Amino acid sequence: MDKNNFVIKGVKMFKPSGAVEAANIHVSGDKISEISKGEVAGENMIDGYGKFATPGLVNAHTHASMTLLRSYSDDKALMDWLQKDIWPIEAKMKRRDIYWGAALAAVEMIKSGTTAFADMYGPCMEEVAKVVEESGLRGSLSRGIIGFADGEKKLAENVELYKNWHGAANGRITVMFGPHAIYTCPPDFLKKVAAEAEKLNAEIHMHMNETRGEIEESIKNYGKRPFEVVAETGLLDLGMLAAHCVHLSEEEIKIIKDKKVRVAHNPGSNMKLASGISPVTKLLAEGVKVALGTDGASSNNNLDMLEETRLAALLAKVDTLNPLAVPAAQALQMATEFGAEALGLKNIGRLEKGYKADIVLWDMNGAQWQPNYNPVSLLVYSANASAVDTVIADGKILMENRELKTLDEEKIKAKFAICAKRLTDN
Amino acid sequence: MDKNNFVIKGVKMFKPSGAVEAANIHVSGDKISEISKGEVAGENMIDGYGKFATPGLVNAHTHASMTLLRSYSDDKALMDWLQKDIWPIEAKMKRRDIYWGAALAAVEMIKSGTTAFADMYGPCMEEVAKVVEESGLRGSLSRGIIGFADGEKKLAENVELYKNWHGAANGRITVMFGPHAIYTCPPDFLKKVAAEAEKLNAEIHMHMNETRGEIEESIKNYGKRPFEVVAETGLLDLGMLAAHCVHLSEEEIKIIKDKKVRVAHNPGSNMKLASGISPVTKLLAEGVKVALGTDGASSNNNLDMLEETRLAALLAKVDTLNPLAVPAAQALQMATEFGAEALGLKNIGRLEKGYKADIVLWDMNGAQWQPNYNPVSLLVYSANASAVDTVIADGKILMENRELKTLDEEKIKAKFAICAKRLTDN
Repeated sequence: MDKNNFVIKGVKMFKPSGAVEAANIHVSGDKISEISKGEVAGENMIDGYGKFATPGLVNAHTHASMTLLRSYSDDKALMDWLQKDIWPIEAKMKRRDIYWGAALAAVEMIKSGTTAFADMYGPCMEEVAKVVEESGLRGSLSRGIIGFADGEKKLAENVELYKNWHGAANGRITVMFGPHAIYTCPPDFLKKVAAEAEKLNAEIHMHMNETRGEIEESIKNYGKRPFEVVAETGLLDLGMLAAHCVHLSEEEIKIIKDKKVRVAHNPGSNMKLASGISPVTKLLAEGVKVALGTDGASSNNNLDMLEETRLAALLAKVDTLNPLAVPAAQALQMATEFGAEALGLKNIGRLEKGYKADIVLWDMNGAQWQPNYNPVSLLVYSANASAVDTVIADGKILMENRELKTLDEEKIKAKFAICAKRLTDN
Repeated sequence: MDKNNFVIKGVKMFKPSGAVEAANIHVSGDKISEISKGEVAGENMIDGYGKFATPGLVNAHTHASMTLLRSYSDDKALMDWLQKDIWPIEAKMKRRDIYWGAALAAVEMIKSGTTAFADMYGPCMEEVAKVVEESGLRGSLSRGIIGFADGEKKLAENVELYKNWHGAANGRITVMFGPHAIYTCPPDFLKKVAAEAEKLNAEIHMHMNETRGEIEESIKNYGKRPFEVVAETGLLDLGMLAAHCVHLSEEEIKIIKDKKVRVAHNPGSNMKLASGISPVTKLLAEGVKVALGTDGASSNNNLDMLEETRLAALLAKVDTLNPLAVPAAQALQMATEFGAEALGLKNIGRLEKGYKADIVLWDMNGAQWQPNYNPVSLLVYSANASAVDTVIADGKILMENRELKTLDEEKIKAKFAICAKRLTDN
């Protein structure tokens, strides 16, 4: 088969309207060159019969290398979890941990249908960039900057990351600036970040309004809520991907809307850490682009975006006591098209002519897919990630019939296990 | 291998304390005859290396044959969903639909690690009993009795079901009485049900306090809340498995505790239908046995108990804003031991000598299980049902290395598809 020029034939295909059509998806180079109906013939074919095609899932907020901390500390109070368990291990992480942690994350993401992710971590984010380059995924990477400790150095690393990697790998790698949060970066420092990012025309990825404590601290320290403080630093004018947005005032929702902030909703992490429930129904009604993210694997505990999509749909309904809130097709649109927009990516996240060929084929043969009245509903409410059959990103096949094409899973697992053991051995 | 006498060797094993031990599980006939440590030798071995053993999951509330309605109607207001979509199709269901619907459910349950389920549906519940008998699962079956329409006839069918099937299949089949709910069965009729059940020493499976509307209607019609009304009918004195219990007053929680009512919590269905959140943390603190259920596949939309276990753990945390609520081991205990107790089953739901051999082996090889610091946490917060490798119920192997041993999946899917098509063709 010509791997640069092929057709997925006779596949059921998702549209954000919720409609499902059987069609042929023509891929040329990195793009969808045509969507056709009816019979197609030729040699370069992927048989789409019994498959459901969606855009690749976009994980709009994660910390990939934190896979190394999965199941290391759970069911703890937030500050015990962070201060006693997570931070001490993170302080021991070396360059090779960042690489192999992200490599394991890439395996997990591809196998669960994710084709793009927004990552904030550090140091050594260039190791994550290498994993993105090698895996065939898209990554919007930012150096997580905690301003209190060596803030200037970290900011300089984010600048270097941008200069070295933004636009690399046929544009699959983009770089954002990653001021961690208002409770780790004072306003004066955020202004410095804004100044550096503005010079490069870079966008911002930041944790915002995750916990009640964060809001209270902001009001105590600055007399204002976090979005009001951050708005004055100039960061919101650069284009922001704001992770969490759990606790929002009406004024803050107005700021988000006016400044076209994109929100990464992380229902699994917000539930597990008992942070609260983001008012996504209200945000969506205001036209805000609400994407979905898993957060890191130590607070989720996986990188399974289908699970996150289901949680977003279910949690919105019980939160608003409205069974019509966030229907299946909208949840899937959040996980795909809105995810791409959240990452600042153009022409990604829809199965349409001219869009980048980021495509997942889901196998509809399992018991959970029967009867097949409505594939969108089946995917969002019934299936699990093991139904991911084939994954294409930027026109390249990353997995086919559940076989990884770009990464060596067994080698990665072995290397990863060595890193995990060294980090946690006393 | 001697299928009646074998050892699962060197397997990591779940205990409700959260501890994980490597051990050998000896199975003789339908029981766990011994748990041993160290090396074992012999021919009748299942290799447990890299596997995690838990008791079989127990689905404490479902309507198995409703798999036929999966994805037929979603994202609708509750009464539109029921009255316009679900009930008209259910009225068309024939004996063969009940059988093949339950058969598909059995395939799905075994493949996702469920070994026992409490089912309420009808008519023709004897078809579900046949599926239980053939599949090797355990089923606690009840004829769903809507009192308003031919209540006496349905009650008589439940009596027949009990007489013909209770204790059948080496005790794998038990029968309960299934008065549907207070809003479909007036108190006088519930008293009749109680009288018939009492004659047979049978227990009760009933929907209780699922929606706010149900509570309001009870207060309007009877001047009391549902548990107060039902307590007066005598039903609670027979032993009740109460599904949902979303909206409860302090007085009702006291009734539940005093009458030793077992609760089937259905977080997925309660979220999807926007019913509300059951106060499970409070119930558990009172010593109430809270089990987990999926509800039917038209409101979930699958029968995946691992997903339900995760939802129970996550939802309790965000509901109480306490990250310590329902930790992983407790959620798993709810899905296993408490499930068995909820179904009125004895010596089931723990991996201990003398208990029935209802065992699931989970394959810990996938990326989502790395690193393997804590298998309980990994299972509850990270894995999905595709990790189910081997399923044993009543000492018999129902699935090994993901291959079904008692059911013909392809035949069932084909027959099921014919039923689904006939039901929904206009």
